[in-house]
Amino acid sequence: MTNHPAYARLLARAARIATINEAAAMLGWDAAAMMPAGGGPARGDQMAVLAGLAHQLATEPHMADDLAEAEAAPPTDPWHQANLRLMRHAHTRATALPADLVEAQARANSACEKIWREARRTSDFALVQPYLADVIRLVREQAAALSPKLGLGPYDALMDGYQRGITAADVAPVFAAYEAFLADALPRAEEIQARRGSPLRPAGPFPEAQQEALCRRLSARAGLEPDHARLDRSTHPFCGGTPTDVRITTRYDEADFAQSLLGVMHETGHALYERGLPAAHARQPVGESAGMAAHESQSLIIEMQACRSDPYLSWLGPQLLETFGGDPAPYAPENLARLWRRVGRGFIRVDADEMTYPAHVILRFRLEQALVCGDLEVPDLPAAWNDGLHTLLGITPPDDARGCLQDIHWYDGAIGYFPSYTLGAMAAAQLMQAAHRTIPDMDASLAQGDLSPLLTWLRTHVHNKGSLLGFNDLLREATGKPLDPADFQGHLTARYLT
Amino acid sequence: MTNHPAYARLLARAARIATINEAAAMLGWDAAAMMPAGGGPARGDQMAVLAGLAHQLATEPHMADDLAEAEAAPPTDPWHQANLRLMRHAHTRATALPADLVEAQARANSACEKIWREARRTSDFALVQPYLADVIRLVREQAAALSPKLGLGPYDALMDGYQRGITAADVAPVFAAYEAFLADALPRAEEIQARRGSPLRPAGPFPEAQQEALCRRLSARAGLEPDHARLDRSTHPFCGGTPTDVRITTRYDEADFAQSLLGVMHETGHALYERGLPAAHARQPVGESAGMAAHESQSLIIEMQACRSDPYLSWLGPQLLETFGGDPAPYAPENLARLWRRVGRGFIRVDADEMTYPAHVILRFRLEQALVCGDLEVPDLPAAWNDGLHTLLGITPPDDARGCLQDIHWYDGAIGYFPSYTLGAMAAAQLMQAAHRTIPDMDASLAQGDLSPLLTWLRTHVHNKGSLLGFNDLLREATGKPLDPADFQGHLTARYLT
Repeated sequence: MTNHPAYARLLARAARIATINEAAAMLGWDAAAMMPAGGGPARGDQMAVLAGLAHQLATEPHMADDLAEAEAAPPTDPWHQANLRLMRHAHTRATALPADLVEAQARANSACEKIWREARRTSDFALVQPYLADVIRLVREQAAALSPKLGLGPYDALMDGYQRGITAADVAPVFAAYEAFLADALPRAEEIQARRGSPLRPAGPFPEAQQEALCRRLSARAGLEPDHARLDRSTHPFCGGTPTDVRITTRYDEADFAQSLLGVMHETGHALYERGLPAAHARQPVGESAGMAAHESQSLIIEMQACRSDPYLSWLGPQLLETFGGDPAPYAPENLARLWRRVGRGFIRVDADEMTYPAHVILRFRLEQALVCGDLEVPDLPAAWNDGLHTLLGITPPDDARGCLQDIHWYDGAIGYFPSYTLGAMAAAQLMQAAHRTIPDMDASLAQGDLSPLLTWLRTHVHNKGSLLGFNDLLREATGKPLDPADFQGHLTARYLT
Repeated sequence: MTNHPAYARLLARAARIATINEAAAMLGWDAAAMMPAGGGPARGDQMAVLAGLAHQLATEPHMADDLAEAEAAPPTDPWHQANLRLMRHAHTRATALPADLVEAQARANSACEKIWREARRTSDFALVQPYLADVIRLVREQAAALSPKLGLGPYDALMDGYQRGITAADVAPVFAAYEAFLADALPRAEEIQARRGSPLRPAGPFPEAQQEALCRRLSARAGLEPDHARLDRSTHPFCGGTPTDVRITTRYDEADFAQSLLGVMHETGHALYERGLPAAHARQPVGESAGMAAHESQSLIIEMQACRSDPYLSWLGPQLLETFGGDPAPYAPENLARLWRRVGRGFIRVDADEMTYPAHVILRFRLEQALVCGDLEVPDLPAAWNDGLHTLLGITPPDDARGCLQDIHWYDGAIGYFPSYTLGAMAAAQLMQAAHRTIPDMDASLAQGDLSPLLTWLRTHVHNKGSLLGFNDLLREATGKPLDPADFQGHLTARYLT
């Protein structure tokens, strides 16, 4: 049924929209990794116009007719059924928003994000406050417009834009349970850790060029083909670009190579997902990733589950010693394990260990819900942030740069994204346990720095599925059950509490 | 009258088209300077979709009505009058070609260009001949379609796509006069040069990082602000990007820093022009450059007129010595002058000196006119090329790779572009003489490596004019006369014959 004329027209239009979005993705990467500061205003316009054009195509009048016509004689193939379902969903989202709101958001986000960089540098929330207020005002309009059309609450309608099929009502109990787990587990983990003594720190400096070469080598060894990827620098590391031309970024600290190294492995996990999406469905909705939580599961299964595992560290240690030289003791695998698997109460989400990371997400999840529903206003954000962090981790940020200014997300209009990080961490643990059951010799491969058995498994069970399945169905087919936070808690217990 | 509604709609549409073209310019730069090979096919689609969207906007039905309405009550301000004139012109060009011809050309050019790479590598004209024949057949159709709509001869209609307001009838006598000049000047220059003996060559290798740092420093000192520009690498150096975010590229040869250094100053000239375009008319037709010949005048006035001048070389020599060290003798300004101002009869246009370069252009100008009007057929091109070069420079290419296969232009469907190179060289000399008359102490500035008096003059008389004036009117206002090749000949006489 793929050649039904209405469905064929829908596919052609989807490909056109996807291609415009590819162009925008490249310009977004460029803005973060390459663009001189003076290009900012023009780039904002370029992004806004491309967003407007994609939106215009997604909402043109023929679209509704074609959808209705195709739905009246739906395709029989499940991939094409999924396409049609996803196109209907995308159409509902796209038509819920007036074009001028879409363009206003693109402009406001771009302006705010630019000022945020300065505000974070100088820890000056007041500088960015009016811009963030604009962003939030428009986000509320966006949520209010989406909510009735999607039959979701306003905040859920925003979350749906990042990870379909998950609501705040699903997340809240999972997070509450985690908060309870953490209240018990964190002090115990800290105590065990203290008993074991401090790990040795490799002595730097570690020249950027050496770090970069190492990052490239490990990323390629993990399966990311240099012919289809770039590694560059940006303030906030990310994975961008398109499936055949993935762009990952990192930042280098000459005193500590772990940040770039593990960061690049994290982005490599994202990139491998993009590379493994079903090429036969490129530029179709079903050919896209299954959502942001699914995406984060792929970065974390590489960074946290594989690369911080004992067997991988046993291979990595000698590689590091060969690269950086000096005293071999800090590169002993057991030392690396203690160094890179430390828990601790910190202010910065992106520096957090895997046990406390969810606390940072829980904080943001609660605050952004409050911002959207109007229970919290932008001027009150810094205080609410500091209170919330104190409740969760017992610490208070000394300034807003280490508080509510630390993350780009809200300042770029991304509300409803944060839960994906922790849902992804939980899914990563669940997928890794399933992979371990299927690949009995996986630890032996990891001990040779070889991620290919894991990658092959992920290609089959996650990457190649595109967005054929929802988040929970994807997990169910791959692991035999929907999201089950017990696997993540089990992982943490095994790694930190034994 | 700028708020006449039809004119306001035209301006808004022009801004949207310009913004799409900016996005395409960035993707074009990325493809040449950044993109991994695997991104090629997707990038081709992205560029095609953006070109299609821009074309669609430029030809949408409202456009003709708005133009007619605005022309019935034209703006009184000359900038807006120029805008309207230029929008009418662009509309005429955009609507003159049937969509199937545009598509056939895109296909034929792309196919021919691919085969040309192989044909040039193996010096096998027969391989590409049928493809070039296709390209030329379609170019003739294109010229025939454009010609009546523009009221220009077929070849002139093609030239108009690169430099408005110049016809073959304007160019032919200028080029004939130059041919006569060259027949006398070249042997004399060669004789003088031989008498002076060979210059010393600086001894390399010159590490890329040092060359790059020097290029950045000189480009910035010439006035290109790092906040609004990037310098990167590509196989074929170019200036791309947008006026607030200019992207220039070069390539490095560790045996010879002159290629990157002078190449970067050339591209810096282009970039300074883009940077100086009138910001108040950004994304309006009148805010664009005055055409390809005007653009080339700006690269050559920096590279050839300023940077290869005696005073600038007297400053540059010590900078080079400081950068690269070693024997100081090759860096003596008189030696640099002899090294970088050598004339000679060569086969390759892009390697030619400023005296013989026009001969390469004259050859191509005559041959491409003959190809368009049907006086020359593709199978006869190699012989005609070799005869023509022999007539102009007294040398015969040993093979077609060093003959009619050397340039990409025709094989990519670009006919009518070549004259711009030499018109630009002539305009550069004319502008430099006018600038010298107005800025009596310019040589003193150049002797300090300071291009700012020249840049200030160019900003006022060229850059800030956008495309308010045609090529000859621009020269007339800036120099008191339309294009006058005597200034270029005077420049060559002073530099090579005294």
